[in-house]
Formats: sequence, C-alpha cells, structure tokens
Amino acid sequence: MDQDPTITNPEFYKVIFENERVRVLEYRDNPGDRTELHHHPDTLMITLSNFRRRLTVGEQMVEIEKPAYEAGWLPAQTHAGENIGTTGTHVMFVELK
Amino acid sequence: MDQDPTITNPEFYKVIFENERVRVLEYRDNPGDRTELHHHPDTLMITLSNFRRRLTVGEQMVEIEKPAYEAGWLPAQTHAGENIGTTGTHVMFVELK
Repeated sequence: MDQDPTITNPEFYKVIFENERVRVLEYRDNPGDRTELHHHPDTLMITLSNFRRRLTVGEQMVEIEKPAYEAGWLPAQTHAGENIGTTGTHVMFVELK
Repeated sequence: MDQDPTITNPEFYKVIFENERVRVLEYRDNPGDRTELHHHPDTLMITLSNFRRRLTVGEQMVEIEKPAYEAGWLPAQTHAGENIGTTGTHVMFVELK
C-alpha cells in the first residue's frame, strides 16, 4: 500500500502548494528524527539545508549526505528515513503528477 | 521569439538540474539588478529569500513581494524583472516539460 508522507508524518511534511501538475511538500526535521515507511511518486527534490540521512529502502540501508541548494531526482519509491546528522533537515519535494 | 533566461542573463540564472521531465534554474541577484526580457514555460517557483520585484509583462508593470519558502505557479509568460527591494533575490524555478 502506498503511504502518503503527509499522512504518516504530518509533523514533518506540509503541503505548501498543489495544482493539476504538481504537489509541493515542505519537509523539516531535527537531528534524530525518523519517518515512518512512506511512498514518494516521481519527485524533484530541492535541498534547503545540508543534511545527513539514513534511508531504508526495502532490505537496504543507505546513507546520504547533501549540501543545501541542490536539486535532484527521486524516482518513485517507498522508504523510511532517519536524520543521522547534527543539524535539522529542510527540503522541498516537488511531486510530478 | 522565446528568450531563454539562461541565455539572456546567465549571470543570474544557472541550470542546476535537468532530465526528461524538468529543468531547474537557480536565480540569484542583488538589489537594483534587472533582467532582460525573457520567457518562462509553465514553472513551479520556490522562493528561498524574501524579495520585492517589479515585473514588466507586455505593457503592464506589476510589483510583487514574496516571503521565503513559498511555492507558487508561474504560468508560461514573457517578462522582464527588477529587484526593487533592499535584499538579494534567491529563487528556484522548476520548469515542467
């Protein structure tokens, strides 16, 4: 089942814009915060802070580290995340419909 | 003719990501800076700073003021802009293909 992150973790994910082409989620967390398993459709991600996260995708765990103001493609996937850095995470997710 | 802002004002607009679905432009300027007339396709705009700008769209001039971290829809249009505020402008443009 595809879990919408605004349902599984409304404390971290806010819908800040939506029309017939896109939905935009703003994500903010603090060090140590973890998300429940959730689903992203094909999404353009823009980082607004640097961050370090551990993602659990299926059986795999991957660690990612990103600088602020980077754009990257997140192909549709289901995962859970954990902020393993020392600073909050601030990201915009532009979901394409 | 449709002028690409990365051609008309490469000092302000940088392509930071592109694939078959989107092109992402990062825009940065300083107070008083002006852009040449240029064209945007349908675009999702995310503000990373507050700003105040004067836009010239055809015969019309409009002043806009935005806070940081707002997402908004820019329907395809040709315009020129001027930073009429006291701070730099920082914006991400997610152009949809």
